[in-house]
Amino acid sequence: MGAQPTWGGRFAEEPDARAARFTASVDVDRRLGPQDVAGSIAHVRMLAARGILPSDEASVLVAALERIAREIEEGRFAWDPSREDVHMNVEARLAQLVGSDLAGKLHTARSRNDQVATDLRLWTREACAGTARRIDALLSVLHARATETVDILLPGYTHLQRAQPVRLAHHLLAWAEMLERDRGRLRDAARRMNECPLGSGALAGTGFPLDRDATAQALGFDRPTANSLDAVADRDFAVEAVAALACLAVHLSRVAEELVLWSSREFGFLRLADAWCTGSSMMPQKRNPDVAELVRGKCGRVVGDLVALLVLLKGLPLAYNRDLQEDKPPLFDAFDTVDACLEVLAGAMETAHFDAERMHAALAEGHLEATDLADWLAGRGVPFRQAHHVVGRLVARAEAEGRRLAELPLETLRAEHPAFDATVYDALRPEALVERRDGFGGPSRRRVLEALDALGRRLASRDWP
Amino acid sequence: MGAQPTWGGRFAEEPDARAARFTASVDVDRRLGPQDVAGSIAHVRMLAARGILPSDEASVLVAALERIAREIEEGRFAWDPSREDVHMNVEARLAQLVGSDLAGKLHTARSRNDQVATDLRLWTREACAGTARRIDALLSVLHARATETVDILLPGYTHLQRAQPVRLAHHLLAWAEMLERDRGRLRDAARRMNECPLGSGALAGTGFPLDRDATAQALGFDRPTANSLDAVADRDFAVEAVAALACLAVHLSRVAEELVLWSSREFGFLRLADAWCTGSSMMPQKRNPDVAELVRGKCGRVVGDLVALLVLLKGLPLAYNRDLQEDKPPLFDAFDTVDACLEVLAGAMETAHFDAERMHAALAEGHLEATDLADWLAGRGVPFRQAHHVVGRLVARAEAEGRRLAELPLETLRAEHPAFDATVYDALRPEALVERRDGFGGPSRRRVLEALDALGRRLASRDWP
Amino acid sequence: MGAQPTWGGRFAEEPDARAARFTASVDVDRRLGPQDVAGSIAHVRMLAARGILPSDEASVLVAALERIAREIEEGRFAWDPSREDVHMNVEARLAQLVGSDLAGKLHTARSRNDQVATDLRLWTREACAGTARRIDALLSVLHARATETVDILLPGYTHLQRAQPVRLAHHLLAWAEMLERDRGRLRDAARRMNECPLGSGALAGTGFPLDRDATAQALGFDRPTANSLDAVADRDFAVEAVAALACLAVHLSRVAEELVLWSSREFGFLRLADAWCTGSSMMPQKRNPDVAELVRGKCGRVVGDLVALLVLLKGLPLAYNRDLQEDKPPLFDAFDTVDACLEVLAGAMETAHFDAERMHAALAEGHLEATDLADWLAGRGVPFRQAHHVVGRLVARAEAEGRRLAELPLETLRAEHPAFDATVYDALRPEALVERRDGFGGPSRRRVLEALDALGRRLASRDWP
Amino acid sequence: MGAQPTWGGRFAEEPDARAARFTASVDVDRRLGPQDVAGSIAHVRMLAARGILPSDEASVLVAALERIAREIEEGRFAWDPSREDVHMNVEARLAQLVGSDLAGKLHTARSRNDQVATDLRLWTREACAGTARRIDALLSVLHARATETVDILLPGYTHLQRAQPVRLAHHLLAWAEMLERDRGRLRDAARRMNECPLGSGALAGTGFPLDRDATAQALGFDRPTANSLDAVADRDFAVEAVAALACLAVHLSRVAEELVLWSSREFGFLRLADAWCTGSSMMPQKRNPDVAELVRGKCGRVVGDLVALLVLLKGLPLAYNRDLQEDKPPLFDAFDTVDACLEVLAGAMETAHFDAERMHAALAEGHLEATDLADWLAGRGVPFRQAHHVVGRLVARAEAEGRRLAELPLETLRAEHPAFDATVYDALRPEALVERRDGFGGPSRRRVLEALDALGRRLASRDWP
Repeated sequence: MGAQPTWGGRFAEEPDARAARFTASVDVDRRLGPQDVAGSIAHVRMLAARGILPSDEASVLVAALERIAREIEEGRFAWDPSREDVHMNVEARLAQLVGSDLAGKLHTARSRNDQVATDLRLWTREACAGTARRIDALLSVLHARATETVDILLPGYTHLQRAQPVRLAHHLLAWAEMLERDRGRLRDAARRMNECPLGSGALAGTGFPLDRDATAQALGFDRPTANSLDAVADRDFAVEAVAALACLAVHLSRVAEELVLWSSREFGFLRLADAWCTGSSMMPQKRNPDVAELVRGKCGRVVGDLVALLVLLKGLPLAYNRDLQEDKPPLFDAFDTVDACLEVLAGAMETAHFDAERMHAALAEGHLEATDLADWLAGRGVPFRQAHHVVGRLVARAEAEGRRLAELPLETLRAEHPAFDATVYDALRPEALVERRDGFGGPSRRRVLEALDALGRRLASRDWP
Repeated sequence: MGAQPTWGGRFAEEPDARAARFTASVDVDRRLGPQDVAGSIAHVRMLAARGILPSDEASVLVAALERIAREIEEGRFAWDPSREDVHMNVEARLAQLVGSDLAGKLHTARSRNDQVATDLRLWTREACAGTARRIDALLSVLHARATETVDILLPGYTHLQRAQPVRLAHHLLAWAEMLERDRGRLRDAARRMNECPLGSGALAGTGFPLDRDATAQALGFDRPTANSLDAVADRDFAVEAVAALACLAVHLSRVAEELVLWSSREFGFLRLADAWCTGSSMMPQKRNPDVAELVRGKCGRVVGDLVALLVLLKGLPLAYNRDLQEDKPPLFDAFDTVDACLEVLAGAMETAHFDAERMHAALAEGHLEATDLADWLAGRGVPFRQAHHVVGRLVARAEAEGRRLAELPLETLRAEHPAFDATVYDALRPEALVERRDGFGGPSRRRVLEALDALGRRLASRDWP
Repeated sequence: MGAQPTWGGRFAEEPDARAARFTASVDVDRRLGPQDVAGSIAHVRMLAARGILPSDEASVLVAALERIAREIEEGRFAWDPSREDVHMNVEARLAQLVGSDLAGKLHTARSRNDQVATDLRLWTREACAGTARRIDALLSVLHARATETVDILLPGYTHLQRAQPVRLAHHLLAWAEMLERDRGRLRDAARRMNECPLGSGALAGTGFPLDRDATAQALGFDRPTANSLDAVADRDFAVEAVAALACLAVHLSRVAEELVLWSSREFGFLRLADAWCTGSSMMPQKRNPDVAELVRGKCGRVVGDLVALLVLLKGLPLAYNRDLQEDKPPLFDAFDTVDACLEVLAGAMETAHFDAERMHAALAEGHLEATDLADWLAGRGVPFRQAHHVVGRLVARAEAEGRRLAELPLETLRAEHPAFDATVYDALRPEALVERRDGFGGPSRRRVLEALDALGRRLASRDWP
Repeated sequence: MGAQPTWGGRFAEEPDARAARFTASVDVDRRLGPQDVAGSIAHVRMLAARGILPSDEASVLVAALERIAREIEEGRFAWDPSREDVHMNVEARLAQLVGSDLAGKLHTARSRNDQVATDLRLWTREACAGTARRIDALLSVLHARATETVDILLPGYTHLQRAQPVRLAHHLLAWAEMLERDRGRLRDAARRMNECPLGSGALAGTGFPLDRDATAQALGFDRPTANSLDAVADRDFAVEAVAALACLAVHLSRVAEELVLWSSREFGFLRLADAWCTGSSMMPQKRNPDVAELVRGKCGRVVGDLVALLVLLKGLPLAYNRDLQEDKPPLFDAFDTVDACLEVLAGAMETAHFDAERMHAALAEGHLEATDLADWLAGRGVPFRQAHHVVGRLVARAEAEGRRLAELPLETLRAEHPAFDATVYDALRPEALVERRDGFGGPSRRRVLEALDALGRRLASRDWP
């Protein structure tokens, strides 16, 4: 703990070792190294352009900062936990390289408050883009698997009861829809946060004639932030991003739940590749969908991260409070967790085997044609509620006799309602049931191909943000 | 519990009273009455346009539904808790009005699954608009109060320590920035959710040749939803809206915390009007900022609502599961809570008295000019880190002598650094400190007026969504 | 809003209607009516015993309060939303009955702060007892069902993969273990909270010579609270109770998940009685386990309630803050929700049909005997890890040949390991597998009967708290 | 990723590197190393005692395990991230030491499911004890500081408004009460979890004649767990412990909020030692209570950890699911976070300077004697509500005249109520106000000394659990 803190002028005692350890953040925020250096370079260049810093000094600083950036990138930077945080580590190295007098000038017209707010927005903006790329990768896998399995039918479920037959591709496209909206939320978040806090100082701006537009532009921001107090005090951009991730994590938990269900012997719809399964240390027969289970479980972590951020911010007065240092662990963890889940789901889905026979066999049990039987009657003028009751009785009968609805003889049908005739049987084949559902958003072959085409075109022409 | 459920055909027993009570939702979802009827009218009209329903029958149904809409609006509708939910209540009333045969046809090509998903999107879309209006009302109050108090200075704080002087208006505008982003999030949510589930059926679309574009358009949606399974299974639109509300509620808790602090005798910056304070049943001297405290406390409720929704959805397989019925209590509660908080904050802020004298007096203690003193040195070529140390020692000295920095004699200053000269004193007046911070987003008079003008223009030309 | 608040002496304006509406809580806290009146009676009697109130006046007050208690109990009490809260409603009625001078004396040496803290502890203590009774009722059902089904075997699962056979009763007893611990947590909470805040005043006690032991004893508390500031400022007793409920709700969501799985056609282990199922408005064949799904979904609500309380309390300074008013909605909702879930699960389980044949049939597929095969080898001195590999290869072979492990011929077994002999086959029957697991806590018949007996004895001799 | 997993017998492919990385947990669960080895030693000894393992083999295993324990303790153990988890790392090292045949026998009659459940209970039990010790350390500091400051008075607050004078020691004891209950919750959790899962196998016990009581006793458990499915499937013991920590973290956030408030220039009640403060990189005058702010902020993290665990468990079917691997990060993080907060609060409080003068001066403003003035009247027979109104008017008058209540002349008092006489003034001195509050739990000197004595005696005779 030998490092002298940078704010010691009026302090009579050294920091207590416990306090220093407790307040240090470099183990976590060193991850902001690249962003921190990029921000400093933009700041120095602007100071020089404005004449606040002589341009020869600026050149020396920029060269040294670029060297530091390379050291960080290449893993050669020597992080020192005794130096509080990422900013102090970078500045200490800078002092080694250019002397402490010149290094000290880097902090002209800047505070750690606007500096870290800038670093964190840069990091989060890039993280959103990275997660969007991983979403797209998973969407591409879903698109490919759905395309190749477009003729596989399986039961659609409600209440985990077999309800009506759908195409497997239609089911996979439902997942894709969820992911598309998650991507949209991340993009909105990335756009809204894209304003540059540099120049907000500790809380009230600075007295130097900065060019905030220049630093904003140099760092790829759309504009500078509009209020200095707000710029250093708020972290709603992190909340928004993590809320989008929590929603995404919940979606992935739903996908994972289905992978677990489908991998069970009871369903038997899916077999993950051996390379994506694990076994048991005790039970030699087990092939466990651990990857899917972990994706489902990790959802808790991301929801927890969101709650951590919201609780953190609750009731804080303006402007900066040290509480805000705690924004990074949940933010980083949420992105890491979701990114890892997206990656393994893409890998597992790419190589998963769908058991078309088991899916098709499942259509035979469960009276999935019941709605269409009622619709058939409704199409012949029977009020739907009445048709529903008629078919309910037929289901009870079929169930009792251990038959499918389509196996009930015509006289049985007619005994319940005289409108039935022999054409009804053809309407009850699974393929017919699915093909009849031919409206926009439905599971018919035409509609599913249409949806696949639309997804493919979106994926081919992605922009960001 | 006399009402016969609509799905009884294959059931041998009456529902158990406890099950019926447990699964009934009409106490909560009756609030969707207007949306439910509007959705039914659009559905019936489309069925008629498509020839699925004779147009005379459609006319009778529409007229009856419009009558029901009026009954609901005027509070005359007789909600029957024994009839499960809002949909069954409306349909039962419809059967009274047009007979059960015709009423039964309303459900042609529709399921409660796509029906409730439509109702809920309509409700949430409108609720977002309502909250945005309340945000605007609060922003208008802040704009007015900031405009009239633009010359009041107060300490800006970091770590709840006096840091640098700012304008009160600058502080109020920081709150406004937060609220603006919250409004943006609600608008993004309202846009993303604006797709119509009608036609998705129970999960797999329907076999009827519906015109989904027509119902979508009639109900003000941008388009129909693109996947029937997803349309009935997901509630991420509710999560997104409530996440935006949770972020807003956290912002309001921060505003409320400052109102509580400022109302304390220690700060004394603010006096809520008597009409917005409450007293104590025991302590006659108390004037308590209960309204602000409750706003702060209600933040917990909204964060809890968000968690409830996320936990609800975690791990659910496709498509509809009855769990989803539990989406409404947290959704409704979150909007009600936030709307009430916005309303009372607007009222309280409108009539609050700012104590400019107390604020100004607070500038005299706490050495808020220290940064500028360091900047003054840095402006004369002293490396900032060194200047910071020099001023740190001067602060310690001033503190020990019980003086302000500006009261230290020049020789004391020069003893610490020879660069000091007499012009430094003028630079240390509070007004000078604030006016020097004249960059974009800063607290100088010009910048604050600029920001007020921009806010005023935004408020004057609001559109939605 | 005509009611004059009780604290108006120094206030120049009437409360704003919006403020009054926002701060009113009687819609929620009227539920504390019985506790509030009981607390007042104890307070009055103590005041009289101490000579602070003449005993004739005390008698009049007690009689009137008892009358109010009856009015509340019988639903005849006229709650007036314009009178802030439960306390003011009761006091206003008291003033009608005994005149406002005498009614005003009720508040001697008491504040609403210690009053509401007392009311809420009384309520929560009783609510814990009520939930414990409902847990016991569900445990009794589980005990009865497990006893009658003790000979039914089904697969035990890990990773939702069939793992090893167990008794159904053993599985039901696993649920019972969870519930027992939940009951223990509620009891611990009920004990820890059982201290009486009366006499803590607004925050600092009172100057009157109260007998705090007497009021504590009269209300069934173990003792008075030990610090007046803490007594009015904290609500950790509510957090602890709701945390126990959240854990219980998570347990119930796990039970519910299994009910949903078992009710699926794929598993087919369970059939809820018609009276506990619901159907579909669209699909006539559906028998949906809605009750179980809602129990699973309502878990989100209780977790949300817990979060609401924790966020509410975060960062509040001592002592009472009005934020605390928001403790009641999540507390009440958590108990109501969990109580309803316990009640319907008991009802649904009481009448559910277990399909022993389906369960038994499921034992035939999935190689549930693999572990025992490995153990058999290990029992003959083969290192377990090697035995595990041997059996893994045999499973792969059986799978490829579409046979059960027990159907592989001896030479096949011996080809993998020479230690196999013909006695192995008898060891692989499901009953043998289960009966061999005869350690404490295991699924053998003897152990399960032992566990049932222990549960039965616990249920027969319950005390509380 | 060269390590061969232990369950590979029936697997045709190597694990995908992404899957292996995603499912590996050794980076986190290596922390369970000591518990894992202790559990293995107890298991081996029991196997030998039961004759399942030859005693010479057991001796070799135990010696090797003890060597491994030392390697772990001394930081010399070479953790290999390619070996899945802590269990596989330990077993691989064991194989190096004793050969893989003998090492393989360690896993006889045990599964990783009961193994990790045992490890985690051992770890959590010890962690609860560690946190309790840290609570006691903080309580000792509070006891010492309260004892030495027993004569300092300060305002007690409600609604952050000065309410009534109390002793500083009384305020510190309020914190102590909260911490005592938190300690009680941890102890209850530690007791309830103290059952040993060993012998539960993967889910259904084992067929070996284990002595579960022996392993339980050897590891300090009270008894073996009573149901094998429950023992491997549930983690409610972790939820309970983390819920207690979340409550504790909320309490610490409240303490921290007061430290921040008291450190502000507005309050000025407290000055943290320089060694426990930090400065600003920009503002040389700042002495920031960062330690307290971080404690307040870290509360969010612990609440997030609790939510993560609850979400993780929601809806999981029995028995073990891989999701459960995600129990460790939130559990470890919650203990680490709370322990660090307790440690620094103890350090900061030990050296903090209380400004008795500022506290005393604060008693002069705010009419803290108003309640006693009303009580004085009530003590002379005036109904409290009327007395309250009288004093309310006197407060308004004093406020308008800029005087304290005690400075109003007797005729002014008598003009509002004739019962006033000259003895009232003596009753209004702060010391008199505090001393009159002499009931149990009150702030009078006698009562505070009593409470300090009780706390001191509790601390001197602590046992655990």
